[in-house]
Amino acid sequence: MIDAEILERHNRQREAAHRRDLEYLAERLARSGIALEVVLDELATFEVALPTWAMAAGGTRFGRFPIPGEPRTIFEKLEDAAVIHQLTRATPRVSPHFPWDVVDDWAALRAHAEALGLGFDAVNSNTFQDQPGQPHSYKLGSLSHADPAVRRQAIAHNLQVVAWGQELGSTALTVWLADGSNYPGQMHLRRSFERVQESLAEIYAALPEGWRMLIEYKPYEPAFYATVIQDWGSALLLAQALGERAQCLVDLGHHLPNTNIELIVARLIGVGKLGGFHFNDAKYGDDDLTAGSIKPYQLFLVFNELVDAAREGVPGFRPAYMIDQSHNVKDPIEALLQTVDHLQRAYARALLVDREALSHYQETGDVLMAERTLRAAFETDVGPLVAEVRRRRGGALDPVLAFRESGYRQQKARERSTPATAQAPGYA
Amino acid sequence: MIDAEILERHNRQREAAHRRDLEYLAERLARSGIALEVVLDELATFEVALPTWAMAAGGTRFGRFPIPGEPRTIFEKLEDAAVIHQLTRATPRVSPHFPWDVVDDWAALRAHAEALGLGFDAVNSNTFQDQPGQPHSYKLGSLSHADPAVRRQAIAHNLQVVAWGQELGSTALTVWLADGSNYPGQMHLRRSFERVQESLAEIYAALPEGWRMLIEYKPYEPAFYATVIQDWGSALLLAQALGERAQCLVDLGHHLPNTNIELIVARLIGVGKLGGFHFNDAKYGDDDLTAGSIKPYQLFLVFNELVDAAREGVPGFRPAYMIDQSHNVKDPIEALLQTVDHLQRAYARALLVDREALSHYQETGDVLMAERTLRAAFETDVGPLVAEVRRRRGGALDPVLAFRESGYRQQKARERSTPATAQAPGYA
Amino acid sequence: MIDAEILERHNRQREAAHRRDLEYLAERLARSGIALEVVLDELATFEVALPTWAMAAGGTRFGRFPIPGEPRTIFEKLEDAAVIHQLTRATPRVSPHFPWDVVDDWAALRAHAEALGLGFDAVNSNTFQDQPGQPHSYKLGSLSHADPAVRRQAIAHNLQVVAWGQELGSTALTVWLADGSNYPGQMHLRRSFERVQESLAEIYAALPEGWRMLIEYKPYEPAFYATVIQDWGSALLLAQALGERAQCLVDLGHHLPNTNIELIVARLIGVGKLGGFHFNDAKYGDDDLTAGSIKPYQLFLVFNELVDAAREGVPGFRPAYMIDQSHNVKDPIEALLQTVDHLQRAYARALLVDREALSHYQETGDVLMAERTLRAAFETDVGPLVAEVRRRRGGALDPVLAFRESGYRQQKARERSTPATAQAPGYA
Amino acid sequence: MIDAEILERHNRQREAAHRRDLEYLAERLARSGIALEVVLDELATFEVALPTWAMAAGGTRFGRFPIPGEPRTIFEKLEDAAVIHQLTRATPRVSPHFPWDVVDDWAALRAHAEALGLGFDAVNSNTFQDQPGQPHSYKLGSLSHADPAVRRQAIAHNLQVVAWGQELGSTALTVWLADGSNYPGQMHLRRSFERVQESLAEIYAALPEGWRMLIEYKPYEPAFYATVIQDWGSALLLAQALGERAQCLVDLGHHLPNTNIELIVARLIGVGKLGGFHFNDAKYGDDDLTAGSIKPYQLFLVFNELVDAAREGVPGFRPAYMIDQSHNVKDPIEALLQTVDHLQRAYARALLVDREALSHYQETGDVLMAERTLRAAFETDVGPLVAEVRRRRGGALDPVLAFRESGYRQQKARERSTPATAQAPGYA
Repeated sequence: MIDAEILERHNRQREAAHRRDLEYLAERLARSGIALEVVLDELATFEVALPTWAMAAGGTRFGRFPIPGEPRTIFEKLEDAAVIHQLTRATPRVSPHFPWDVVDDWAALRAHAEALGLGFDAVNSNTFQDQPGQPHSYKLGSLSHADPAVRRQAIAHNLQVVAWGQELGSTALTVWLADGSNYPGQMHLRRSFERVQESLAEIYAALPEGWRMLIEYKPYEPAFYATVIQDWGSALLLAQALGERAQCLVDLGHHLPNTNIELIVARLIGVGKLGGFHFNDAKYGDDDLTAGSIKPYQLFLVFNELVDAAREGVPGFRPAYMIDQSHNVKDPIEALLQTVDHLQRAYARALLVDREALSHYQETGDVLMAERTLRAAFETDVGPLVAEVRRRRGGALDPVLAFRESGYRQQKARERSTPATAQAPGYA
Repeated sequence: MIDAEILERHNRQREAAHRRDLEYLAERLARSGIALEVVLDELATFEVALPTWAMAAGGTRFGRFPIPGEPRTIFEKLEDAAVIHQLTRATPRVSPHFPWDVVDDWAALRAHAEALGLGFDAVNSNTFQDQPGQPHSYKLGSLSHADPAVRRQAIAHNLQVVAWGQELGSTALTVWLADGSNYPGQMHLRRSFERVQESLAEIYAALPEGWRMLIEYKPYEPAFYATVIQDWGSALLLAQALGERAQCLVDLGHHLPNTNIELIVARLIGVGKLGGFHFNDAKYGDDDLTAGSIKPYQLFLVFNELVDAAREGVPGFRPAYMIDQSHNVKDPIEALLQTVDHLQRAYARALLVDREALSHYQETGDVLMAERTLRAAFETDVGPLVAEVRRRRGGALDPVLAFRESGYRQQKARERSTPATAQAPGYA
Repeated sequence: MIDAEILERHNRQREAAHRRDLEYLAERLARSGIALEVVLDELATFEVALPTWAMAAGGTRFGRFPIPGEPRTIFEKLEDAAVIHQLTRATPRVSPHFPWDVVDDWAALRAHAEALGLGFDAVNSNTFQDQPGQPHSYKLGSLSHADPAVRRQAIAHNLQVVAWGQELGSTALTVWLADGSNYPGQMHLRRSFERVQESLAEIYAALPEGWRMLIEYKPYEPAFYATVIQDWGSALLLAQALGERAQCLVDLGHHLPNTNIELIVARLIGVGKLGGFHFNDAKYGDDDLTAGSIKPYQLFLVFNELVDAAREGVPGFRPAYMIDQSHNVKDPIEALLQTVDHLQRAYARALLVDREALSHYQETGDVLMAERTLRAAFETDVGPLVAEVRRRRGGALDPVLAFRESGYRQQKARERSTPATAQAPGYA
Repeated sequence: MIDAEILERHNRQREAAHRRDLEYLAERLARSGIALEVVLDELATFEVALPTWAMAAGGTRFGRFPIPGEPRTIFEKLEDAAVIHQLTRATPRVSPHFPWDVVDDWAALRAHAEALGLGFDAVNSNTFQDQPGQPHSYKLGSLSHADPAVRRQAIAHNLQVVAWGQELGSTALTVWLADGSNYPGQMHLRRSFERVQESLAEIYAALPEGWRMLIEYKPYEPAFYATVIQDWGSALLLAQALGERAQCLVDLGHHLPNTNIELIVARLIGVGKLGGFHFNDAKYGDDDLTAGSIKPYQLFLVFNELVDAAREGVPGFRPAYMIDQSHNVKDPIEALLQTVDHLQRAYARALLVDREALSHYQETGDVLMAERTLRAAFETDVGPLVAEVRRRRGGALDPVLAFRESGYRQQKARERSTPATAQAPGYA
């Protein structure tokens, strides 16, 4: 963790300017009838889970560029996560990925997390890679595989992941499948879907009390012709077939070009099947870039749907917020600090939308003013709001700079062995 | 209609070569254990409905280029449709669009069609344009409009369309909505969908015995930010909410870039909600080009799913086949003749797929051979098959050339007044 | 024009809050070493041309919804343009489209514009529609047509447009071609391009002293398989072949999905071939929505390249700024007022970028801080800046609301006959 | 290599049916005035280079599934390539990738290739990965890097690759750069392009006599916001700046959604800058699937442009044909055998196009018949043609089946050690 004194000094140096900005914002919002404190209280409730798999440098099929001080184990990843939570005060939980994060002593891991002030969010299974010694290969599918032996192995893995999750106090299983095909004909399109449904039903039936299943969809990659759960419609069919505790998970990067994602979010809210999010951003495919870094307005429009549903009190509306990114060129800790900030800004802006006015303009067909109502919120510089929420809870006014001031990465670079240069991952 | 003698002469001139090609194909198929006659019989069952709105030259927002001899009324459109059916023997029904095709005397229209050997397929309502004297505008929506008065007007129009359809012997209502928004904020995303569902429920409740409702989806155009029924997932939710006789209609051009359409077809078949098709093709958006003209392999893969479902005997599988195209640069009759040929070729190829072998390769994970099984069917030149089906039923070996030989268009150009030059439709 | 008193009252009512916002912004910018006055001065130089064709309600191939008070002639369009300039003080020129805007008395038109304080920007030719009495049709192309007679007609039209432009004091010809093909084979891909080049060379050779030719590119619509000038690469080849006064025009809506437009802008700047812009926005195709309404960050990134080039003093950098939108659901005047505001905001934000810091982070490989430098500018609420620039030059603090307060549209609705309901433009 | 007897037996078993198919095709083509022998002679000239990097199982960032018998060295890759050439008689050259294919003894490698009947095609440099011991990292770019030391290292590597290529008798350098940025602001868009141009100029200046430089473009991956050579326009600018021996290389997977690739091919032919191809196919991104497996009509349309240019005798038209694929689920040798067959089929079909008729229909504006002329060629089953070309040159009638009959892979699986299970390449 970062030395409290460093954090204090960081905040002290920025305090005067921050207060000035906040005062002005309070005055400005008051003009529109918005009470700063109310917004701050709502904003303070926002929490998002950190992915263990995004704590080290990510890569592409063309290569990976390791950085000094990367975490090598789940224990080290938790340390890094604790720093992110210390600076943002908005990431109290970590989402593990198995078997990557498997340990011998689960109690020790849980205790380690607790000592760091962290808990565990949804657990993730992995049937898109073969593990050493594994009897059957997932090369041609897992829960949808034509061979029942492969399906049984994949089901067993998921059940095992749930058991590990119970050890850690998790209450949700996220299922993302790489199942699909690269060529027309390779896979029977209907039967593979039926098999996934049957496999998921076995896992769903074994879910512990209070657990949810979150089903991801994705149109392509690593399968390049068809995937078994290709879009929200397919994920919805599965969630409908499984039952109330099965819901859909929206990964912002898992959509075809030009998709209106906020509209999908609205549809899933409308039928009570929005289970949660994997936040990230993308310009082309599943780029796994920093959330809000490419299409900040889109991120705001997604949060606008979420705040709208929360305000309305849509029954059962309780989405899980998680980050899923690949940090290929940024320091992962810095990137996650920035990500949390982007998410909070989008949320803060959505909180500022004058919903009464918006509703009025929508009902009366005043297109331009309805749009302006959203834009007024979007164009507000909510930086001071987000910083104030952090400050009040003991975090940093500017987490990225505070992190740099702390020298944490350099210290870890000394403590943790540098990984070897990563060779061509997509090639033999 | 075209003079029988012309048609006969056309076929006679091509007969020798045709027989030769057919003989070879029979021999070739026999080698793979396929009986030509069986395929011919199955192929002969294929029928597709012609759209009245595609009988005259189409256009874009930038303009329309009329051609001499275009039909001006539904009566003239039926004449042209009869010629298409005469030459192809595969288009015995016409799909009307209201109010464009409204007439004073429905009995006369029905008699006219019957005299031409034609019947009526699904009727289409139009709430994407304002009609002269209409009390409320559809500028900001119809069945989803925030104003109940507009919704009532749109519901009433649909009920009226059903009534007209009953006059004509139709048994299905196709609903395509332009409802949507051009700007974020313009429309409440969830409420507009709820309103569509309520409106459709009123129409559904009033459907005559034996009727189906076919619900189209479309991601954009003419709405450019969000549409109310944007994808198959949304159409499915509506069809589920309405009941068994509500199904989804797949227009091949109504998808985002890179969408795997055959996969959607498989999903809809899987849940018994595939209502039918609007056939066309596209490279970019809803281009409404000749079916199979841009992505012939995709069209084959769609038909592959259809034949697969039919062979399997999926309960309730009974999709309606319709064409929906815009003929901006081709003679509409010629384009439709070519379209029917393309559709039959895709169907014929799908019939040639060795499904037993395919299934075997899929189950044993032989990716390349599974793909090759599809390709073998796709690469077969099925022209002789399709021509033979036409010939046996009294049609033309080469419909487009037979049409040209008939001089039909030139005759109509003399009989029908030439339309005025079309001015900038997208501009004031 | 709008009564000066109404405008004054409008500003008076908002003055106190505006001053407060501006003071704070000045203080905040000063903290970052930016002088408000310098930014205001630069921002005040921004001017953008209004398109005459976007003054009335636009439409799609599915229909057009006219609004009361639409302008019917170029004279009325100039009146509306004058109101936009009065309120924004940033649109002193109008871009005409011929033959739509052809008049009998050019001197009268020019005098009318001058009286309204307006001049004329680039003139646009139209070879995508047939005009009554025109000997040859553009159905299958104009400057690229296989028939030399059609090309000659299209060349003559362009020369005529230049002559008309001279009457009006214009100094640029914008050429957008609908030339292309809907089906493979329709057009010889290489020869059609060669013919366009030859045709443009004739027009270029006849350009008056001081004139520029701006060449648009577009991947599709109304041609749906291939266009003759499909992308910036093709436009560049033409501009290179023609000469120094031929440059490329970037219409923001004329790109394939996911295109990085700011990168194209950078490339064209780099070779001195960025002629200008048609501003608008899009989510799917050439949607012609309000600039900045869908992807505000992209618009900022485009302006970032422009400001960067201007600051660097790239030789010959002198892009023409024009709007090209279709106002299907908003009041066109309001939409244009909003558009100008959006453009000015994007420009203002680009002016705030700390280029020295940015350059430092780029050179030292500090990815996150480089990005943050852009974001800091983007997240600044520049509304007060833009409003102040308008106020100082006699415009409105809030142009849209001032326009509504003026009652201008209602008055025109009384004066100008309401257009008839627009019928199915894409259909016969 | 495969036992000659096995190959002979393979062909003998299929000979009768093959002769029958060929006879019919000859008769059929003769009807259209096409001499089978002429087509066979032209088809026999088609050669395509094999990529060494696609001889082992490929992977994605999510994993790689090794197969038994994969080649481990360039020597083993050449053995596999020799088998492909033995069966297809169309792949006499191999394209190496450095430093992956670096050896100690170049003469030995060259001799090994010659003994196998193989030569070397274009050499590929690799500046998208860091090699052990390399002083500077390519994480943030290579030839475009802001740091001149990194650029010098990358230039030196390319010069080294050329030197290695000379050892092997190669005469072309293919440059594909991963240079780009993941976030706005990361890279100065214009300056990074200028730096690439300067770096390439140094390499170009050092090219040996008779060598060409082939410049690839790619819109994204592994850079996810902007790439330095993003499209053919950018590659063209570089090729123009460098000189006559610099040309553009079209990788079919390196395009944005919906791109009309054959149109780009036509443009590059038109300016003499089409250097060659990396053949593959894709549905979504750079999927690197079997050429022609997803969009066979597109592949035909590309070859249609190539044949058209060859027939016309466009000066300097001499494209290099290479394959660039990733074989994630198919046996790489089988996939390459299938690929060569697909390419030959596309070429054969393009040879069958009646160019005189096509030209006539294009000039007279007969859209439908022009399209039909292409389709007639495309729909011809050219399998017998392609098989006959192979047979006459000593290859296999059905290369994939012949390969399976040979037991080659099983033998190699015994000889070559099985690679370890590949772990999560995109993750730390």
